[in-house]
Amino acid sequence: MFERIAILGAGLIGASIALAARESGAARAVIMFDRDPDVRNRAHALGLGEIADSAEAAVAGAELVVLAMPVGAMVEAMAAIGPALAPGAIVTDVGSVKRSVAEALAPLAPPHAFLIPGHPIAGTEHSGPEAGFASLFKGRWHILTPLADARPEYAAAVEKLAAFWCALGANVEQMTPARHDVVLAVTSHLPHLIAFNIVAMAEDLESVTESEVVKYSASGFRDFTRIAASDPTMWRDVFLHNRDAVLEVLGRFSEDLAALQRAIRWGEGDALYDLFDRARRMRREVIEAGQDTPTPNWGRDEPQ
Amino acid sequence: MFERIAILGAGLIGASIALAARESGAARAVIMFDRDPDVRNRAHALGLGEIADSAEAAVAGAELVVLAMPVGAMVEAMAAIGPALAPGAIVTDVGSVKRSVAEALAPLAPPHAFLIPGHPIAGTEHSGPEAGFASLFKGRWHILTPLADARPEYAAAVEKLAAFWCALGANVEQMTPARHDVVLAVTSHLPHLIAFNIVAMAEDLESVTESEVVKYSASGFRDFTRIAASDPTMWRDVFLHNRDAVLEVLGRFSEDLAALQRAIRWGEGDALYDLFDRARRMRREVIEAGQDTPTPNWGRDEPQ
Repeated sequence: MFERIAILGAGLIGASIALAARESGAARAVIMFDRDPDVRNRAHALGLGEIADSAEAAVAGAELVVLAMPVGAMVEAMAAIGPALAPGAIVTDVGSVKRSVAEALAPLAPPHAFLIPGHPIAGTEHSGPEAGFASLFKGRWHILTPLADARPEYAAAVEKLAAFWCALGANVEQMTPARHDVVLAVTSHLPHLIAFNIVAMAEDLESVTESEVVKYSASGFRDFTRIAASDPTMWRDVFLHNRDAVLEVLGRFSEDLAALQRAIRWGEGDALYDLFDRARRMRREVIEAGQDTPTPNWGRDEPQ
Repeated sequence: MFERIAILGAGLIGASIALAARESGAARAVIMFDRDPDVRNRAHALGLGEIADSAEAAVAGAELVVLAMPVGAMVEAMAAIGPALAPGAIVTDVGSVKRSVAEALAPLAPPHAFLIPGHPIAGTEHSGPEAGFASLFKGRWHILTPLADARPEYAAAVEKLAAFWCALGANVEQMTPARHDVVLAVTSHLPHLIAFNIVAMAEDLESVTESEVVKYSASGFRDFTRIAASDPTMWRDVFLHNRDAVLEVLGRFSEDLAALQRAIRWGEGDALYDLFDRARRMRREVIEAGQDTPTPNWGRDEPQ
């Protein structure tokens, strides 16, 4: 599909793309760069691909360039590689925010390259090149948010990029960057924010010690610690770059939580029951859609 | 250990105790009752134990009686079985709230029986007799909250009950009912409340459809749907009976969330990073304490 692809950023996502692209045959050669020399060495030791000495060197001659770094680092990277991009090169990214990325990167892309922002709905709570694995994108959604570019060559590039992600096992959807940011604020950004909040809060309590929280965490709390273990740099950038959509849905969450708080204070059992019962139905839909396993406790408590 | 135990309530927990008690040899005969005739029939079909026609009949001659029902149903059950309890019978429960249970049940227990409230920190998001399994309590904590009863026979009964739970595979801890309720408000009740809240909120949004939320739920939201799938009756009773501790910790959560909201609004990247980084450390402690698996995504995304 591609003779040569460049991946800038060798974390969980970049490493997984490298492994999946070669395993699937979607790319013959994978060139990687990471601005952290230690990460470059580890990516080299893992055999993820050829390691370049600079972002410019990595993208030279590449037909596809993937920005696999925190959203806040993308402008600098794009400015650096712009002049080095080959004619007809496709540039995409894997950031969890799309509107600010598209707006900031578009002016930096040379006219002979095709910028097509994207976001794989895949990941784990682990970080770094060692966390990558080839099947990460299998059966997961990949959202592309193409720019308003009417050239037929641009449309062809979008098709080619979609085919690349399909080859890695993903199902590809298209939407506008603004739509993406609203949807992900609900499904991803707010859940992570409240997980970070409850975990940090528990650490600060005076009434209950941290060791008690850890000891009895299997009663619910431990679920939140998993998503709160995600990369802090990546998440800082998400909240800085998707501020408006996150604040809007967070306002709604707080409003509903205040109503729930009031129902508890006044002992409104029926209202509590109805709300809890509705929440249960959503679980069934998630499982029917193939987005989670029906195994109790995700199977993590199975006897070893 | 016990010749005859009675379990009132044949849901996930009651069924699991029945299976575990016989598999471990901790009880020779298990008598069950559930006030729902359909649940009784299903428990019978599953071979969980001898099924009695009434709670009074179930407890007659039993050395141990376990109230395995929602907290809100316990007073009625205790009032019914009190006169039928055998001399020296131990009565315990598995409710997620302890202070209100202990206070309400103590006056109803006859002087010749020993009431010892308890709470297994174990469960899944599934409900009903079919959801039970014998290994549910293995390696999990079981909290006993004995009453202030100075009789040596009471202390002996507490030891015997602790030995029973150990035989089922649990690690037993003792604390006061009030302490239990504060600790569980943090580790269990608040996490469930905010999971219920975010899932119900997502269903009500106008800006994002329910099918979009389901479709992209693997980005974080699906984790919350799991614990929001727990039994609504049980959880309604938890919030009605542990109101004060829940409201206190909920107030703290909302206060911290408001600070986080402000940090996002004003673009305070360092504050966000520091908080997210702290939350990550708690995850490591949970794993080191053996309270969760280190497998990424709990292993649910492993290739089938």
